Amino acid sequence: MGGATEIVLGIDSGGSKTIGCAVTRDGTVIGTGFGGGTNLYFVPEDEAIFAIQQASRQALAEVDGEVAAVYLSAPGLTFDVAELALEGTFRYRNLVVEGDAPAAFRGALPQGDGVVVLTGTGSFAYGEWRGRTATVGGWGSLLGDEGSGYWIAVEGLKAVVRASDGLGPPTALTRLFRKTLLYGMERELVGLVYRKGLSRERIASLATVVSDAADEGDAVAREIFRNAAGELVKQAAAVISRLGVGRDDEVSVAVTGGVSAAGSPLLDPFVDALNLAAPNVVLVPARFPPFVGAVLRACEVAALPVDESFIERVAGQIDAAQTVPSSPQLKRRSAL
Amino acid sequence: MGGATEIVLGIDSGGSKTIGCAVTRDGTVIGTGFGGGTNLYFVPEDEAIFAIQQASRQALAEVDGEVAAVYLSAPGLTFDVAELALEGTFRYRNLVVEGDAPAAFRGALPQGDGVVVLTGTGSFAYGEWRGRTATVGGWGSLLGDEGSGYWIAVEGLKAVVRASDGLGPPTALTRLFRKTLLYGMERELVGLVYRKGLSRERIASLATVVSDAADEGDAVAREIFRNAAGELVKQAAAVISRLGVGRDDEVSVAVTGGVSAAGSPLLDPFVDALNLAAPNVVLVPARFPPFVGAVLRACEVAALPVDESFIERVAGQIDAAQTVPSSPQLKRRSAL
Repeated sequence: MGGATEIVLGIDSGGSKTIGCAVTRDGTVIGTGFGGGTNLYFVPEDEAIFAIQQASRQALAEVDGEVAAVYLSAPGLTFDVAELALEGTFRYRNLVVEGDAPAAFRGALPQGDGVVVLTGTGSFAYGEWRGRTATVGGWGSLLGDEGSGYWIAVEGLKAVVRASDGLGPPTALTRLFRKTLLYGMERELVGLVYRKGLSRERIASLATVVSDAADEGDAVAREIFRNAAGELVKQAAAVISRLGVGRDDEVSVAVTGGVSAAGSPLLDPFVDALNLAAPNVVLVPARFPPFVGAVLRACEVAALPVDESFIERVAGQIDAAQTVPSSPQLKRRSAL
Repeated sequence: MGGATEIVLGIDSGGSKTIGCAVTRDGTVIGTGFGGGTNLYFVPEDEAIFAIQQASRQALAEVDGEVAAVYLSAPGLTFDVAELALEGTFRYRNLVVEGDAPAAFRGALPQGDGVVVLTGTGSFAYGEWRGRTATVGGWGSLLGDEGSGYWIAVEGLKAVVRASDGLGPPTALTRLFRKTLLYGMERELVGLVYRKGLSRERIASLATVVSDAADEGDAVAREIFRNAAGELVKQAAAVISRLGVGRDDEVSVAVTGGVSAAGSPLLDPFVDALNLAAPNVVLVPARFPPFVGAVLRACEVAALPVDESFIERVAGQIDAAQTVPSSPQLKRRSAL
């Protein structure tokens, strides 16, 4: 393939997966690659390194020269570990490592100012406004992550337990979790969850069970999604407040991450709560997933020109790349 | 010491500690011993075995004969592991292993029917009524444990995070958690909690921070204790309902476990909520801690006579034994 300075690599890594994407100067996607999660708070260092190497090698399979810039978006991962992962994997000139918020933002709102709300394994809201930035949430499964896939799944399991104790209403979740986790009595959940030690990612993936129940019309599951939407809107509103947006300024808000694909059970109450929270806010579709945001950030690092035609060019090629198997990715609804 | 059949050993093990207590037929306490937690959902098997051996050896230091009966109260621990722990440690005739509810009940309400609410590292409500039994709660830190030390501590940490995000009111917890966990900015909590992996027991022990804030009059901390009390009363009310207690029957409810020592911040709202939930319920002090309940159960296993004079005899000797260093044990308040 072409000259060294013409290729950039964007890598986005969340709680459960890593996606690498290599793009040329003119916006041609020359490779995508996939790996597991890299968050050092939750996975061992060697697994994180392997995931980055795997996603990079696959994305760069067609490349033999030097890469101009690598942008790695990953919460809880240090520059040192990223360097260690890339060492000997391929040659590159510049490496930037950041948390997951800026790439999620750049992917969702490549045109600029606004707020992105991410709900995947974890959750956060991040915004940029006239040079200011603000982040709310992103505290992880113990301290926060309200409205995330993990949070939705745990709320679903708690609803099953409450129904079993007579402290909550009967719910379709009882049947659906039994079918998914293969237990007979709710008390067996204790052994399943603690003795077998379900990982944070595996738990987050169970958000699909709550999504299925909501699709069946289950009131308890729908209430969980309504509460999730409320929590995510609170985060977005706090970001808007911190950015110092004026009352007359219109702010774009985009929702991204695997859970956003749940569609109307999440997004309908999200829009309702958003309208109540801030009348000057408009919900816009996230234009690209976070890994494309990482590519756009890599272009900036390499000082490559990123204009609308470059973005359009990339957009035309990523539909296929987006259909990645992913734990917390909920089924896409036709309603979306 | 005396003949073999005259000694019984009760062992109570919760989330963070094990207490063994050996008693003779006439109610003389001949030894107490202490170890760590044994819950196999949260600690490795060898640690659990060591804790049981340690508590047993210390309690039986003065004994050289055979023990008539051993009663082990421990959630998540199998008979096989208990047998393995006792093998070669001392000689015994009978061994019974049960969850933590029956011993907590027998210790709190040795006279019989009623409901015990336990709040330590975890939480549950358990009752006995005219031969029926019922349990609510005890689902562990992910699925439940509402109102427990773990739950109170996590609610406290979440309040700090919410205040930091501008999603909740300022609270004294911000200063007190910083002082206890030694961090500068709230964002450092993420590394502390996930990278260093605070154990369930260590987190539960942080309930003392919330208790300190409540003592200072902090509104957020007081609200957390009020909510904890509400959750525990919900569990008690569900147990009473399941036991089929008649409207005209008076039911005794006792609160036990390390967190109950928080005193009025927990117990005042507990009484209020209890009176609202069930007018035929009366709060009584827990007579003994769960390890004495385990001794009384051991006496039953050995078919030893347990009458009021036996209980009185034991009661006179356990005040000293009760003052055990324990993570989730909150400071005792003079108000109690």
